[in-house]
Amino acid sequence: MNIVFVGAGNLATNLAIALKEASHNIMQIYSRTTESAKDLAEKVEALYTNKISEMVPGADVYIFSVKDSAIENILTQISPNNGLWVHTAGSLSMDILEKHNERIGVFYPFQTFSKNRQVSFSNIPIFIEAKSEDDINILNILAKSVSNKIYKLSSEKRKYIHLTGIFGCNFVNCMYTISQQILEKENIPFDVLLPLIDETAKKVHDMLPEKAQTGPAIRFDTNIINKHLALIEDKDQREIYNLVSEYIHKNNKQ
Amino acid sequence: MNIVFVGAGNLATNLAIALKEASHNIMQIYSRTTESAKDLAEKVEALYTNKISEMVPGADVYIFSVKDSAIENILTQISPNNGLWVHTAGSLSMDILEKHNERIGVFYPFQTFSKNRQVSFSNIPIFIEAKSEDDINILNILAKSVSNKIYKLSSEKRKYIHLTGIFGCNFVNCMYTISQQILEKENIPFDVLLPLIDETAKKVHDMLPEKAQTGPAIRFDTNIINKHLALIEDKDQREIYNLVSEYIHKNNKQ
Repeated sequence: MNIVFVGAGNLATNLAIALKEASHNIMQIYSRTTESAKDLAEKVEALYTNKISEMVPGADVYIFSVKDSAIENILTQISPNNGLWVHTAGSLSMDILEKHNERIGVFYPFQTFSKNRQVSFSNIPIFIEAKSEDDINILNILAKSVSNKIYKLSSEKRKYIHLTGIFGCNFVNCMYTISQQILEKENIPFDVLLPLIDETAKKVHDMLPEKAQTGPAIRFDTNIINKHLALIEDKDQREIYNLVSEYIHKNNKQ
Repeated sequence: MNIVFVGAGNLATNLAIALKEASHNIMQIYSRTTESAKDLAEKVEALYTNKISEMVPGADVYIFSVKDSAIENILTQISPNNGLWVHTAGSLSMDILEKHNERIGVFYPFQTFSKNRQVSFSNIPIFIEAKSEDDINILNILAKSVSNKIYKLSSEKRKYIHLTGIFGCNFVNCMYTISQQILEKENIPFDVLLPLIDETAKKVHDMLPEKAQTGPAIRFDTNIINKHLALIEDKDQREIYNLVSEYIHKNNKQ
């Protein structure tokens, strides 16, 4: 398929490269800054522009992958065409595209992306949605060319998927960060934590997280909890320690 | 070496099996309940007892792996011997063994253990400590027989290691649990989150967590944050969402 990317951020970069590798033709990359547009365009042998008015017509699919707050403004600056317009945002409804083009949809890969880290797409769940059944089929073909986990899902449900990503990825990474900060203060390399991080992630492949819970919070061992609170210098970290410990204790399903 | 286990919980079970596989002789398992003692004893071809007074003398190493709150009571019920007594607790000082035996130490494998899940020990960091240099050498040999990551570490420093395990494992698992609970309500299988969980863990092998942070909290996108808060029905989950989002935003190092 012929594809245009509007946006050249973390997700766009990873997705454009994966689609290129799956033999699609990336026609053009738009980004607000020429540099980002050019960077990605070079990787996927595409044209590039920093003027949205120069967006080429005639592509099969237009993938809008910009910040949620930027997409509405961009949409008002372009004319409808015959292509299928999709956005990649977990938290935005398909409807935001409604007034701007006839054929619309959503293509949401559920993963965390960084520009300098190419992720293998093959087992990333991709949630698709479209106004017409024909366009669902097109998105299904497109998604299947990079992944083997495709789900048709409404905007309403997708919001919850996105929310669980906040807890399961962003907040998890914040917990890693707090560990990193405590280890740094004690001059202990972060590496000592990696086997534990890996096993914690692996474990929930075999048992549900509520069954995998271990540690002093679940039995509300106030002796250890109080010792820990005394060790933590940072007030915010202490607050998080308290709140999450209470949550674990209250939700004990063991 | 000839080894006695005092305790037959998650850690003791995993460690006893690993030591047995490394050709050590597990002489005896003590547990408060005969059933647990017997279960583990059968796995490692050891004797077992539920009476601490029946603990056999003559072992090279006695590994005390019981709840922090139970260890003091057990120690008062047994007589000193010529063996090396170690505990496996991250949060307890070596000193708690001081009054009870001449040769004492700590053998702390930094990992999360469940009884029904045997973990490979080879890359688990093991933190060792002992009163005498000779006993450090013995613990080093013992640790090396199951792992290739051995660190000598004081009780003072070990407390912090244990604390980072709370954030990096127990609290991480709690974030998984919240995701699981939200997905369950929406009848979406937890499996869709696994690729994201795996990538979040893998990513911090290559970049420090503070550099790996993504999501709406880091840019404090109040539009998305407020949408999420409106989706979360549970008051405690909402509080955690708020507090962790603020922490991520405040500690933005990107």
